[in-house]
Amino acid sequence: MLIGKVVGAVVSTAKDEKMQSLRLMVVRTMTVDGQEGSGYVVAVDAVGSGVGEVVLYASGSSARQTILTDKRPVDAVIMAIVDTWDVDGQVQYQKSG
Amino acid sequence: MLIGKVVGAVVSTAKDEKMQSLRLMVVRTMTVDGQEGSGYVVAVDAVGSGVGEVVLYASGSSARQTILTDKRPVDAVIMAIVDTWDVDGQVQYQKSG
Amino acid sequence: MLIGKVVGAVVSTAKDEKMQSLRLMVVRTMTVDGQEGSGYVVAVDAVGSGVGEVVLYASGSSARQTILTDKRPVDAVIMAIVDTWDVDGQVQYQKSG
Amino acid sequence: MLIGKVVGAVVSTAKDEKMQSLRLMVVRTMTVDGQEGSGYVVAVDAVGSGVGEVVLYASGSSARQTILTDKRPVDAVIMAIVDTWDVDGQVQYQKSG
Amino acid sequence: MLIGKVVGAVVSTAKDEKMQSLRLMVVRTMTVDGQEGSGYVVAVDAVGSGVGEVVLYASGSSARQTILTDKRPVDAVIMAIVDTWDVDGQVQYQKSG
Repeated sequence: MLIGKVVGAVVSTAKDEKMQSLRLMVVRTMTVDGQEGSGYVVAVDAVGSGVGEVVLYASGSSARQTILTDKRPVDAVIMAIVDTWDVDGQVQYQKSG
Repeated sequence: MLIGKVVGAVVSTAKDEKMQSLRLMVVRTMTVDGQEGSGYVVAVDAVGSGVGEVVLYASGSSARQTILTDKRPVDAVIMAIVDTWDVDGQVQYQKSG
Repeated sequence: MLIGKVVGAVVSTAKDEKMQSLRLMVVRTMTVDGQEGSGYVVAVDAVGSGVGEVVLYASGSSARQTILTDKRPVDAVIMAIVDTWDVDGQVQYQKSG
Repeated sequence: MLIGKVVGAVVSTAKDEKMQSLRLMVVRTMTVDGQEGSGYVVAVDAVGSGVGEVVLYASGSSARQTILTDKRPVDAVIMAIVDTWDVDGQVQYQKSG
Repeated sequence: MLIGKVVGAVVSTAKDEKMQSLRLMVVRTMTVDGQEGSGYVVAVDAVGSGVGEVVLYASGSSARQTILTDKRPVDAVIMAIVDTWDVDGQVQYQKSG
């Protein structure tokens, strides 16, 4: 999995029938230093995440292992909202609130 | 999934028997800044997309989860045409018409 | 899938029993500009391709979806010989003959 | 598989129901020269590893082949703690203790 | 698949129960020019390869298609020892002996 920040969303009307009722979020990948990287992925939201939140996403066939994404043509899923993560004893991020 | 722009097509006569009746599109990957990147993929079109359209494509085994691509030797599928997508509150693209 | 050019072959005597009777081709990946890139892959030939031909190959589990590669430990397969492909209205390659 | 060093952990309360009871470690990928690289992955710990340990992790669908990770939406798993590894006859790392 | 050179091994005592009795080799990826690249992978040896040998390895779910690796949490397998390979009519490597 990789850590990312939800920065936006994708809206689509003309789509495969198996793509109905899914929220598609734009997620910027974060580096191990806690910075936003240049990479991104569009991931299905399986946990009610919102723009600005730091999340964990899984890629590939593993993205189809949630009940929401089962058998769907999607290769990335947000399956956890991050409360906090640390590297080398340093907190990289702490969810507020 | 990644966002891409359909920029062309591939034509093939000599192909595996499971590759019949598929439209193969050349898709340039878009960066999170809404620019066309240098990367590309050849993806099966499952949604009737055309050259110039911005689309969403899935890769790997997930590309075989549409009815059209089931059990076929293909690793990328266009499964949604993008109406609009935004990053950091800014609309990166808006489908015309 | 990606577009590549067949540039060579690999010969192996000591191999897993499931690797019998497969032609293993060295394929240089082509860029979207129609140039030969620095990347390559060794792919099973499922369509009778030869050195010098431009082909389409699939990677990952999708590479096992041809009858020839079913259940084999291979992660890339050439499943189409390219006749022609175009980008931005320009023909990048045209098979001769 | 790749060799990595466990450098931290991720804590999440709001997560997919299939993500319960898993330890999520931040693993820095190591280069073949035995240095910590800039890449990382968040991997499920299946072997009781701790911060500072050098481990082996598997990615993709293979990450779901341990009893702990079976059918879960995870794409990386730590499935071995490294005692020692060598390259070109040189020991790159030796677990202490 | 990619071509690599076996340059070392990984030893592990504390590992997932499905990782018993596997030889884990460090394999440097070779470039299409026949040089050793900077990338590497740790792969299960399914063909009795040794340090110094040039081999072919498969990644992802395909790495679990040998009898030895079936259902194991491994994402790379050496499934062929290379006798010779050529690019653009030039032999890149010839196994001695």
